[in-house]
Amino acid sequence: MTRQDRIAARILDEVAELSRDTAGVTREAYGPGEEQAMQAIERHAAGLGLVSERDRFQNLWLRLPEDARTAPPVVIGSHLDSVPQGGNFDGLAGVLAGLLVLDRLRERAETAPPLRVLALRGEESAWYGKAYTGSLALLGRLPASALALRHRSGAGTLGEAMARSGVDVDAVSRGEALLAPGEIAAYLELHIEQGPVMVARGWPSAVVTGIRGNIRHTRIRCLGEAGHSGAVPRWLRRDAVLAVAELLSGMDEHWRVLLQMGVDLVMTAGICTTAAESHAVSVIPGEVAFSFEIRSQDPETLERFYGLFQDSCQQIAAARGVTFAFDPALHTAPAAMDEGWIARIEAAGQARGTPVERIPSGAGHDAAVFAGAGIPSAMVFVRNANGSHNPHEAMERGDLLDGVELLVGALTRGPG
Amino acid sequence: MTRQDRIAARILDEVAELSRDTAGVTREAYGPGEEQAMQAIERHAAGLGLVSERDRFQNLWLRLPEDARTAPPVVIGSHLDSVPQGGNFDGLAGVLAGLLVLDRLRERAETAPPLRVLALRGEESAWYGKAYTGSLALLGRLPASALALRHRSGAGTLGEAMARSGVDVDAVSRGEALLAPGEIAAYLELHIEQGPVMVARGWPSAVVTGIRGNIRHTRIRCLGEAGHSGAVPRWLRRDAVLAVAELLSGMDEHWRVLLQMGVDLVMTAGICTTAAESHAVSVIPGEVAFSFEIRSQDPETLERFYGLFQDSCQQIAAARGVTFAFDPALHTAPAAMDEGWIARIEAAGQARGTPVERIPSGAGHDAAVFAGAGIPSAMVFVRNANGSHNPHEAMERGDLLDGVELLVGALTRGPG
Repeated sequence: MTRQDRIAARILDEVAELSRDTAGVTREAYGPGEEQAMQAIERHAAGLGLVSERDRFQNLWLRLPEDARTAPPVVIGSHLDSVPQGGNFDGLAGVLAGLLVLDRLRERAETAPPLRVLALRGEESAWYGKAYTGSLALLGRLPASALALRHRSGAGTLGEAMARSGVDVDAVSRGEALLAPGEIAAYLELHIEQGPVMVARGWPSAVVTGIRGNIRHTRIRCLGEAGHSGAVPRWLRRDAVLAVAELLSGMDEHWRVLLQMGVDLVMTAGICTTAAESHAVSVIPGEVAFSFEIRSQDPETLERFYGLFQDSCQQIAAARGVTFAFDPALHTAPAAMDEGWIARIEAAGQARGTPVERIPSGAGHDAAVFAGAGIPSAMVFVRNANGSHNPHEAMERGDLLDGVELLVGALTRGPG
Repeated sequence: MTRQDRIAARILDEVAELSRDTAGVTREAYGPGEEQAMQAIERHAAGLGLVSERDRFQNLWLRLPEDARTAPPVVIGSHLDSVPQGGNFDGLAGVLAGLLVLDRLRERAETAPPLRVLALRGEESAWYGKAYTGSLALLGRLPASALALRHRSGAGTLGEAMARSGVDVDAVSRGEALLAPGEIAAYLELHIEQGPVMVARGWPSAVVTGIRGNIRHTRIRCLGEAGHSGAVPRWLRRDAVLAVAELLSGMDEHWRVLLQMGVDLVMTAGICTTAAESHAVSVIPGEVAFSFEIRSQDPETLERFYGLFQDSCQQIAAARGVTFAFDPALHTAPAAMDEGWIARIEAAGQARGTPVERIPSGAGHDAAVFAGAGIPSAMVFVRNANGSHNPHEAMERGDLLDGVELLVGALTRGPG
């Protein structure tokens, strides 16, 4: 076991233990599991002789103590929150990779640009329906309205949770940026792949070309009318479950056809529930709440497919006597990665004798926020079995260390 | 306001008040709302000089004190439980009608057959997934396995709730009948219509020809695989929501076609939920739990449509890589009402100058259990706006009193 492998094993195991739940790990955005992960990273950074500090929005920054250069740094970042009952590597692997890069550059900081490692909060949308709240706030781009988003349980808002975590919420609500885009030379992020492609193709790491954007609704309510399941004939029913079933089943068929036509698109209704306080086997369901999300690398595909969804809702509402009540749609634009940094990462792979393939990112990442602000951004993916957002994520530490070497190689090659 | 109207108003208002919840009324089977309704009926029966007693299964019996005849009585019954957030009249109206019939026959008991009024428990399947538990137990027909059915919340079983209510659960589990079918001359039940037909047609009361049977599953689980909503391509997904949407939407279309062909059928998936502890906007749903119920007056239609449902589940499971885990199917046979008692009720209407129409019952009733045991059974429906199993049930007391007069007329006309 190498020094770096020992450090990685200790940090991964310790953070997993701190955030273990009944099924996987749970590190709630601006909640206890995320805070404990922050503190664990702080402890290990101190043990390795790194300097750490928190910004006013409670993101964590690490740097080498001997590096006194003041030029805009390259930032290596990722997030420490997870979805509920998620896996240990989504986010944490990237923060750990940054820490390992710093450790690899001890005693030779000047061979790379000035460097900061950034552990962000609140990347996962699972908690408040909005992704990237940590990076958006940092860059002054989190809309003040997002502070009123409610927790998935219905209890409390994002703003309240931020305040409990010690975030300067007034500054967030004013849209104050802690960093201007010009104060960061580049943003690099290592992340596990969250799909099955790299495992299937045998790629330990890969370089990301771009990140899918998305349009999503956290909670659409389909409102029909409750009634006795035996006594109301079909023509007088306003059954919310059958309306939503028709809607989703129809959209699924459109999706299938568009994939055949070569369109980049995924569609998910991750939440779909009748009303727990009143539903019953013998009651016609009067209400269903469901989420709806589409993702594509192409902004036009997103807008057009979303239009098709709205049309379908209207048609089904008219045909079935139900209404659809929409929460505000949340839009995240697709993001392209920086060609210069892609080339540096590829060159680093060539130099190690292990060429890296290019892959698009189906999932969203904080890197999309930095890219959206005009900061040159790039990502390294590490293969990972069993997908992510579930307890069965399985990244090999050897693959993580390969990814770290790619970053070190890209950073120490100079500006190209 | 007549004497009978005053009695009806007081009892309806008092029981509603005792079982009021945030939306409607809740009288849980073998739970507090049902017990309070029982006690209210006991108090009012005592106030009217009626004799009341509970049997060993905690059903309530009322009779006239001066009627000492020992021949098998005619039983007028209904139930006192409700669905969660239900309406005040479903069940209660029938118990109240029986009490009002006794009151109308004071001082002239001998003009009718020996009479008992029966307030049953546990008619609604919403609580433990099985209907008619009170009447089935009374006749020794509740399978012992039903005692293990879990409460809708997941906490506790039917047997435990019965025991807390004072039911002799050992006797229930032995299948001991408190009454043999030969000990009841006939079973009559007044109930609100739970559909919109009588209001639409202007019928204050009607006589029921038969009761739909049903096949139901309380909880079918569709098991797929959770995954990141952006990173897994469609062909590798095992999305439980889209599988259930396709299933229900397909069955809905079969239903539509069968209605066109004149088949008697209703179909309902009253409960449909992703897993609250792990679902999220950005997670492919790995699990959906849903209920499925079909009802028909024709046993063959039930069996064949249920077969079609099972075939559809198999096809979708194979095509989508999901599995369906079925809880045991619960079967309730359709029931025909007794022609002799239907004729007596019609004759009573004729005698009052208000002919009553015939109507089938889409909903199930305890009368189906008595009919299934070979006891001549009949039902009077009272019109009711806004359906039932919801807080907006709206029965007019005048219509209830009309129904009471039909019963009094049918009982006092002798055996036909």
